[in-house]
Amino acid sequence: MAPRTQPIVEAESKSRRPGRPRRFETTKVLDSALELFWRQGFANTTTRDLESKLFLNQSSIYNAFGSKEQLFELVLDRYEVLTYEALLKPLEESKDGIESLRKFFIDLHQWVTNDGRRGCMLINMMAEDGGISESITARTTAYRKRVKKGIKGALRRAVEKNEISDGPVDARTIILFGLALGINIAARGGASNHEIKELVSAVQGQIQSWRTDWH
Amino acid sequence: MAPRTQPIVEAESKSRRPGRPRRFETTKVLDSALELFWRQGFANTTTRDLESKLFLNQSSIYNAFGSKEQLFELVLDRYEVLTYEALLKPLEESKDGIESLRKFFIDLHQWVTNDGRRGCMLINMMAEDGGISESITARTTAYRKRVKKGIKGALRRAVEKNEISDGPVDARTIILFGLALGINIAARGGASNHEIKELVSAVQGQIQSWRTDWH
Repeated sequence: MAPRTQPIVEAESKSRRPGRPRRFETTKVLDSALELFWRQGFANTTTRDLESKLFLNQSSIYNAFGSKEQLFELVLDRYEVLTYEALLKPLEESKDGIESLRKFFIDLHQWVTNDGRRGCMLINMMAEDGGISESITARTTAYRKRVKKGIKGALRRAVEKNEISDGPVDARTIILFGLALGINIAARGGASNHEIKELVSAVQGQIQSWRTDWH
Repeated sequence: MAPRTQPIVEAESKSRRPGRPRRFETTKVLDSALELFWRQGFANTTTRDLESKLFLNQSSIYNAFGSKEQLFELVLDRYEVLTYEALLKPLEESKDGIESLRKFFIDLHQWVTNDGRRGCMLINMMAEDGGISESITARTTAYRKRVKKGIKGALRRAVEKNEISDGPVDARTIILFGLALGINIAARGGASNHEIKELVSAVQGQIQSWRTDWH
């Protein structure tokens, strides 16, 4: 997935109407909106919240982005780029086997807890939307597919390097993926830092238990 | 946790004002509201949705239950009773070891997918609320604690029966619990039936891999 910057540019050009000077930088505005939607979810974020967070009035927001839904789509584009850089690229581009999995879960732990963040915004949207919106479902389905592919690639590298036994790679992929979902939802829903750490540690232990030299 | 029926009775008496005959059965109304909130979440369920689903107008709803928030608290009480009967009681009261875990994940799979349901309502609320409401967080924290305790009890029985090796019961508890969360969120967020089944099968495989007679 190449970073999708096109819609961001579109929004910028939309806001440049004749005689209406563009008064804000789209990327900065999207990052602020992202922070808000990430913390509060889509339904719970009101136009008033957006006005106050983005330092823009309603009509400027709607002139630039169309609607709350359209703004959110751009925010999701931006989120996908950021997640890719922080989580998936290191996993996909690594030459390591088991070490790249260990690192992925450290990165994931950070991603879902740092700066008062709560979970992965896309996984949160799986819960909030409940598979109703086609656009959200398409994104979250693609995201799950991609995470599983990344995990599977790392498990295969680990087998090739003889770090882990040539076991059931597909089943192990799904176990680690299911646990990644579990970590997300724990981080989202008010589990204590201790509880989340305990979960991440158990996952690291699970990965280590597959090592050929583990006993 | 004893089934909490008290608030339901309170709501019933509230609706019995002099000269205002009670026109509906509270439990039936709560079950209908439960179906709606379970599918749509709290924020996405409007008063209009409730009116149409409950066959009651707004003022009847508010006379009987106070507010959408207060109605939702009663719905959560009811949900906890139902979840206890369907999922936790069988796990807690079983004398079986590994078989009770196998059954728990079968029950969970049914619970989160049957009748067009999407996930466990309490786990969905972890995601939707994001740990903001104290009342929701207290409920979901208690629920997580209880599920973990049930899983741990079953793993201990399995060790006592020599079904599984005397391994790290705490870590295994957390792994299974994390996977239960993962199954919930997959069921909630538009994962296909195939994807959910794959996840549940991988969990069953994980449990079986701990068997002393497994190779």
